[in-house]
Amino acid sequence: MSSNYRMQVQYDGSRYNGWQKQGDTDNTIQNKLETILSRMTGEQVEVHGAGRTDAGVHAKGQIAQFRLMEDRDPEEICDYLNTYLPEDIGVTSVSYAAPRFHSRYNASSKTYLYRIAKKKEAHVFDRKYVYLYKGGALDTAAMKTATIQLLGEHDFRSFCGNPRMRKSTVRTIYAIRITETEDEIDIAFTGSGFLQYMVRILTGTLIEVGEGRRDPLSMDALLLARDRRMAGPTAPACGLTLMEVRYN
Amino acid sequence: MSSNYRMQVQYDGSRYNGWQKQGDTDNTIQNKLETILSRMTGEQVEVHGAGRTDAGVHAKGQIAQFRLMEDRDPEEICDYLNTYLPEDIGVTSVSYAAPRFHSRYNASSKTYLYRIAKKKEAHVFDRKYVYLYKGGALDTAAMKTATIQLLGEHDFRSFCGNPRMRKSTVRTIYAIRITETEDEIDIAFTGSGFLQYMVRILTGTLIEVGEGRRDPLSMDALLLARDRRMAGPTAPACGLTLMEVRYN
Repeated sequence: MSSNYRMQVQYDGSRYNGWQKQGDTDNTIQNKLETILSRMTGEQVEVHGAGRTDAGVHAKGQIAQFRLMEDRDPEEICDYLNTYLPEDIGVTSVSYAAPRFHSRYNASSKTYLYRIAKKKEAHVFDRKYVYLYKGGALDTAAMKTATIQLLGEHDFRSFCGNPRMRKSTVRTIYAIRITETEDEIDIAFTGSGFLQYMVRILTGTLIEVGEGRRDPLSMDALLLARDRRMAGPTAPACGLTLMEVRYN
Repeated sequence: MSSNYRMQVQYDGSRYNGWQKQGDTDNTIQNKLETILSRMTGEQVEVHGAGRTDAGVHAKGQIAQFRLMEDRDPEEICDYLNTYLPEDIGVTSVSYAAPRFHSRYNASSKTYLYRIAKKKEAHVFDRKYVYLYKGGALDTAAMKTATIQLLGEHDFRSFCGNPRMRKSTVRTIYAIRITETEDEIDIAFTGSGFLQYMVRILTGTLIEVGEGRRDPLSMDALLLARDRRMAGPTAPACGLTLMEVRYN
């Protein structure tokens, strides 16, 4: 009987090649966690993240899951990880999970936050976690209008960064919330799941709407086109943070 | 007739040798500001900071002052600075100051914040702005008791990092506020001015009180000793931020 664990992880993604292990690099969050867990337990541990964040993307509420053949105390695991993890990765909690719990397959929604900074001088201390936009004022009312056509279940192929994507590109967006302060525009996306670069392409497209270069009522047509070339640019990774993963 | 300007500056001090120009290095905040202002105006500009923060110390509300022979629009100066300053320095505002205003001599009080982090995993995103304390729980009630004897006007020579200090080491501390959350202990010091390393030595000494290694009622005797060797260690620079400078 193996034990199943769930953990919550925060990281500054700036110097990593994303969450997921890849053929040519071990500089990933997943790899850091697996290496330390394997050293601690002597087992070959595999860690599964709920959201496979891209290179340079951050997380405050990443949820990950792993199994151990030999049972260990969750708090002991948490302390061990935080002792040996670099300072830009932190484990907030480790707990037992139901035997069949899987962090990605069981997730009911994920929330990503994209932060657009309007003033460099207001973001000296969190400059690595925002996209410094130098194009002047954005029309957030138009951006909010554009989000309406994006809500609900759609084929988001136009917003998929992987041109060789063979699986379904249908996803459901539950909410897109745009909030503006004097220094910053924040866009929070909550959905069933997101395709590769999807949040960043949505953001790049919404920025074009805010610039007046794209009709806020053209999102329906853009979804129907199912063509990545019709959407806006991929907004920079540094502005994006995985905030929360929910399970029913 | 020259124009006198006052500006508010934020910086992440991590990669600088402090505020002040020094003989052997030009890697200071003051130097960065002077270089850009001189390039903009063609004049040899001198910038005076209210607090001469040490290497590695940060600022959210540093106030600086400078004069120009040829009058320039304050907003134009602010924009120019923010365009050419590196991303870890930002100018929040520039305004005209009274002709005899001097940012340091006229300051009535300064507030410094020292942040002690108790949990690495809670500070992934502001890890450069806290001191990660690994010594376990601190007795903040004892620390608060110790602050009482430190308030008011005293000779703070025991808390002065410069052994060759020839000028007066008398300063007035108006308030020391200790607040504790689950993740962090913050100590805010407000005073007429602070000697070199004084806030960090006060913090190091208060930490020893919190550890139970120093009597909270021994601060009177420590002040009377006028001996740096009697006080606690100098807490790390990274935890310290100049928050506010006030003028009457």
